[in-house]
Amino acid sequence: MKPTQQQIEKYADLAIHTGVNLQEGQPIIINGPIEGADFVRTLARKAYEAGAKDVHVRWNDEDLTYLKMKHAPLEVLENVPQWKVDEVMSYAKDGASILSVYAPNPDLLKDIDPERIAAANKANGQALKEYRDYIMNDKVSWSLVSIPTENWAKKVYPDHSQDEAVSKLWDKIFQITRVDQEDPIQAWEEHNATLRKARAYLNEKQYTKLVYKAEGTDLSIELVDQHIWHGGDTKTQDGKKFNPNMPTEEVFTMPHKDGVNGKVTSTKPLNYAGNLIENFTLTFENGKVVDFAAEQGEETLKLLLDTDEGARRLGEVALVPHQSPISQSGLIFFNTLYDENASCHLALGGAYPTNIKGGSDFDEAQKAEHGVNDSMVHEDFMIGSADMDIDGVLADGTTEPVFRDGNWAIDFD
Amino acid sequence: MKPTQQQIEKYADLAIHTGVNLQEGQPIIINGPIEGADFVRTLARKAYEAGAKDVHVRWNDEDLTYLKMKHAPLEVLENVPQWKVDEVMSYAKDGASILSVYAPNPDLLKDIDPERIAAANKANGQALKEYRDYIMNDKVSWSLVSIPTENWAKKVYPDHSQDEAVSKLWDKIFQITRVDQEDPIQAWEEHNATLRKARAYLNEKQYTKLVYKAEGTDLSIELVDQHIWHGGDTKTQDGKKFNPNMPTEEVFTMPHKDGVNGKVTSTKPLNYAGNLIENFTLTFENGKVVDFAAEQGEETLKLLLDTDEGARRLGEVALVPHQSPISQSGLIFFNTLYDENASCHLALGGAYPTNIKGGSDFDEAQKAEHGVNDSMVHEDFMIGSADMDIDGVLADGTTEPVFRDGNWAIDFD
Ligand SMILES: [Zn+2]
Ligand SMILES: [Zn+2]
Ligand SMILES: [Zn+2]
Ligand SMILES: [Zn+2]
Repeated sequence: MKPTQQQIEKYADLAIHTGVNLQEGQPIIINGPIEGADFVRTLARKAYEAGAKDVHVRWNDEDLTYLKMKHAPLEVLENVPQWKVDEVMSYAKDGASILSVYAPNPDLLKDIDPERIAAANKANGQALKEYRDYIMNDKVSWSLVSIPTENWAKKVYPDHSQDEAVSKLWDKIFQITRVDQEDPIQAWEEHNATLRKARAYLNEKQYTKLVYKAEGTDLSIELVDQHIWHGGDTKTQDGKKFNPNMPTEEVFTMPHKDGVNGKVTSTKPLNYAGNLIENFTLTFENGKVVDFAAEQGEETLKLLLDTDEGARRLGEVALVPHQSPISQSGLIFFNTLYDENASCHLALGGAYPTNIKGGSDFDEAQKAEHGVNDSMVHEDFMIGSADMDIDGVLADGTTEPVFRDGNWAIDFD
Repeated sequence: MKPTQQQIEKYADLAIHTGVNLQEGQPIIINGPIEGADFVRTLARKAYEAGAKDVHVRWNDEDLTYLKMKHAPLEVLENVPQWKVDEVMSYAKDGASILSVYAPNPDLLKDIDPERIAAANKANGQALKEYRDYIMNDKVSWSLVSIPTENWAKKVYPDHSQDEAVSKLWDKIFQITRVDQEDPIQAWEEHNATLRKARAYLNEKQYTKLVYKAEGTDLSIELVDQHIWHGGDTKTQDGKKFNPNMPTEEVFTMPHKDGVNGKVTSTKPLNYAGNLIENFTLTFENGKVVDFAAEQGEETLKLLLDTDEGARRLGEVALVPHQSPISQSGLIFFNTLYDENASCHLALGGAYPTNIKGGSDFDEAQKAEHGVNDSMVHEDFMIGSADMDIDGVLADGTTEPVFRDGNWAIDFD
């Protein structure tokens, strides 16, 4: 069945209040696909009802993206006009919340020359550095939510008709984001409380290192000194709570950019730049990827790793139990927002400065000194599985179990 | 019936080639409603096929416009951020063609406080002055085309179902824009040749004045010295042909801003700023509206007239025979692009500098001296009818018939 207007409204309420936690008098940027016009308009209405002073919708359309990537000359792809930077920065500087409706077609750019994709991504990454800093430092509240689009839904449910696939994906999204519950906002409060316990426990422990063992994975990850675990809701620099991801099941912190060693094998496909990378391995030495291979999309993986210096190092280590509700659905979503919350994962690329004490005030030199990775990209990739064991190493060298057989080895209550 | 893909393609070809006449290597701005996504995407594809180096689509959505006009504080409506100006100017300066898909809901803003609409329009008009100059001086090629939207179609065909109304309006648009003909581009060549004869005749005559007589209308309009009649295709400053309006049936030139006297009565509703103005009269003295009344929308008419000094004066005088195909359809379109081409009309507001010899190079002082009206607005309103007579006054004071009973009194062949 198509979603009812009531479901759409509940979902939009959740995104505006629990997601970005929009305050009276604030502006908001909403990024959304034109295919999701009904939902985006509902978000806009809810935002004004919450007292938004200005709702700026930045529509996107994958058909146009594809046409441009296919036909425009390289110098056009490499040129990000200044007004595009000014557009988002003028809102960010005015304290706007940023709500993105994220629903990429995983196969959008599969026939596009990877060099062209790399060039376009690089240009965007460089031009939008200041904007990215706003987001990664939680200077403003931001949130990602997904809605089904035709291409995405067909990828998740290839054996169903187009309409059925979209309906099934709506149902799944409502279930996973708790919109099917009586009071989703309350359900998120409880969920956030659970994640808060996990991160409090880990923040207390201050493991110096995590050691991963699973089929195809034997990896040791040093955590930075005074690292901070986040998960669930977080706070803007001026103290306003928000939920950056909906759904979210992870707790995550900062690896030391030079402290990763060993080999890791992916357990879910990674959708990057309109292409899928599947069954890949990465080998690390002193933090850096020194070898890699992929059964599918190796060229895209290379493109990702070659973006900049930091793209070959880790910026995030995240723990998600294999029994998470998203994982239990048994589906592969081909959408990082969903798949990352079904699986322990790592991220290639820039770290969140908020994952280390004082990090938001670090300059470049301090970042390097404390092991904070810097990059234009930040790409979560999935490594969790039912047979994954993770040990935590304490400051005194003692080792204790953190995960066993894919799930928490700790009881937080 | 819904339009076939073939019809959509023909229409898009016509807009890209006959409309803006896009050249290899040129950028193009396409303004379009998200409701018309399929058509806009087809335009984008055709533009790249024609060799566009960059297609920049500026999506608009009337639901969002309404929400903003309804809810945003006045200071937000009055503020046009600089990036919005830079966005269009960066393309214009790079020689972009501008293609706008124009399909407003005539009743969109009918419950919005007219003061708020006026404030928003004024802010936009002031901020986009330089951009408007590019268009009004034909510095770049530009074109307007329409497609049915649900709200607009229901206004034209209120007694039909939503789907039927949209289908009927597509049919009507294809007929009027010659898309239903074997070779629409060729059909437009012939049509442009016809209009060329009319404007050549009138340019030769150089009437000093036009005198209008019809039920409710008794008006004398002085034309500026060395005025130029345009109609059908025109040329950019660097000599590239294009058709600014599709459809177009008019020939038009420049009234003297101080030379209009008498009274005129509208014969079709005017859709301005999301509201309809119906059955209105304007009384002119020495070019200026000194009295006005409207059966409906008088407040909106007042808002238009009060925009700026030039909004109370005329910027265009256009001749369209009452037997034009659009007029013969018997429909009121509530869309200026269609209604203006069914009726003799005038425009309140800024004149096209191209309608006077050398006008594109005039500075403010020269404009004033030659009687060129200047304003942020340019609003065509319809005055033609089956009983309209128009006389032309020659330089020697002789009078000759130009229109009789609503149609040309002249045989151009
Ligand atoms: Zn993560
Ligand atoms: Zn991440
Ligand atoms: Zn006109
Ligand atoms: Zn006009």
